[in-house]
Amino acid sequence: MIDRLCIIGVGLIGGSLARALRAAGYCREVVGGGRDPVHLQQAVDLGVIDRFDTDLAAAVAGADMVLVAVPLGATQTVFSQIRDHLEDNAVLTDAGSAKGSVIDAAQRAFGSVPAWFVPGHPIAGTENSGVAASLPDLYQNRRVILTPDEHTAPDAVERVRAMWEAAGAVVTEMDVIHHDAVLAATSHLPHVLAFTLVDSLARLGDREELFEYAAGGFRDFTRIASSDPVMWRDICLANGDAIQLLIDRFIEDLQSLSHSVHEHDGQRLLEIFESAKQARDDYAGE
Amino acid sequence: MIDRLCIIGVGLIGGSLARALRAAGYCREVVGGGRDPVHLQQAVDLGVIDRFDTDLAAAVAGADMVLVAVPLGATQTVFSQIRDHLEDNAVLTDAGSAKGSVIDAAQRAFGSVPAWFVPGHPIAGTENSGVAASLPDLYQNRRVILTPDEHTAPDAVERVRAMWEAAGAVVTEMDVIHHDAVLAATSHLPHVLAFTLVDSLARLGDREELFEYAAGGFRDFTRIASSDPVMWRDICLANGDAIQLLIDRFIEDLQSLSHSVHEHDGQRLLEIFESAKQARDDYAGE
Repeated sequence: MIDRLCIIGVGLIGGSLARALRAAGYCREVVGGGRDPVHLQQAVDLGVIDRFDTDLAAAVAGADMVLVAVPLGATQTVFSQIRDHLEDNAVLTDAGSAKGSVIDAAQRAFGSVPAWFVPGHPIAGTENSGVAASLPDLYQNRRVILTPDEHTAPDAVERVRAMWEAAGAVVTEMDVIHHDAVLAATSHLPHVLAFTLVDSLARLGDREELFEYAAGGFRDFTRIASSDPVMWRDICLANGDAIQLLIDRFIEDLQSLSHSVHEHDGQRLLEIFESAKQARDDYAGE
Repeated sequence: MIDRLCIIGVGLIGGSLARALRAAGYCREVVGGGRDPVHLQQAVDLGVIDRFDTDLAAAVAGADMVLVAVPLGATQTVFSQIRDHLEDNAVLTDAGSAKGSVIDAAQRAFGSVPAWFVPGHPIAGTENSGVAASLPDLYQNRRVILTPDEHTAPDAVERVRAMWEAAGAVVTEMDVIHHDAVLAATSHLPHVLAFTLVDSLARLGDREELFEYAAGGFRDFTRIASSDPVMWRDICLANGDAIQLLIDRFIEDLQSLSHSVHEHDGQRLLEIFESAKQARDDYAGE
């Protein structure tokens, strides 16, 4: 059980956790922290949080659990603002999509990475953002990855794990570098491709006509290009090395496919498409 | 009204048209043509067609409307097989996703492109294929593009238009080169990217772990990679020039984005992501 949960950044991710934990009766009080009082008041009106404070030092006061769920680029600033105001028994965690950069931010803000800080990443979300899009069942049966290291207090890890499990998630632990590589492949690269494709097409001649003749597959394929641009800019900057590596690899594969098209190499094209369909059907059938 | 409709290739596309026209009472009889008697018998059992013949000359006998809905690579062979057996009053149309290659196939099979041949393309479909996946409302409010030229008989165009409208579709006409460019952008390139991404990831180290940590966005993004490999091989060969042009352009855009990641150019990344989100939200909001 959590007594007072402080969520800094009450958007889709933070708001959905608050809704889930309230529905589960897992915390007595939820306090929101952030910069925008209008947005935070909306979260109160929606019943997602009990109250809020735009002064983060005041927001974390008395909280035994603090979740930072802001765009990655704002993480270090938030850590610095709360550093001297966390309770002695407080556990700090976050929800960033890249973990190496968050650990660096903690190191810089706190001097060293605190034992009571547990880096976390819920593998969930939609293309929508903001507290109005938050859902109590967003984490139901979804993965949450924690990336503690040997200096992290086991008790802190357990408290964060129990919180996410109370929200319905399946929690696993992973090495931070491995996490960032896996997510670069399955999330960051696809988002980069979708954003690039839509931007690329939008700059072609007759954009309205183009989209008018797009079929359902295009709508699914480009859904993630409706995701929050600031969040994704920050992810690209935070996990740039892993993302660049995969972009380069993807470009090589695409050039090879383009070559097969040029050479009318139907056999090679069929091999690629069959391998992809097989892998995708295996995955989606799980 | 159609008296006897012959559909050569009774899969998702042909089967869905048959279902829609039967539901609308728009044709008296539907005859299937194709190579695989087991598959065609399934179409009979499902009530999609009345009867079938694997001899295409026999299948088209007495039909006043013939739809060829086979992978593009089989089109010319089918045209040659039915050439001397079409009724005098028959109109021939097709459902290929690229139209220049179909017109070339007609030219080669018939000596010149017949006035009673109307190239067509229903912009509909799912990642599933086969007659079992066919749906009576697949074409409801979906676009069908016809690409007749000045030699096409206006009466033939009208009969094909009326058929698709009876199936619930919105029919427009387009220049063939323009069609192939528009579809390369909105359909062919996205499919190529999805196939390449999944194949690329499937060849990375631990494929099962990768897909295990993929979120909902990845499932949507890669759905089209479950499409029929043979159909897509044929599309890549049939519309190769337009597709290659767009792949090359996409690679340039992706290299530019990779450069922005490398340079930590957050402003540029934000511009691209915001432009894409805006375009995608405009399109999806339509």
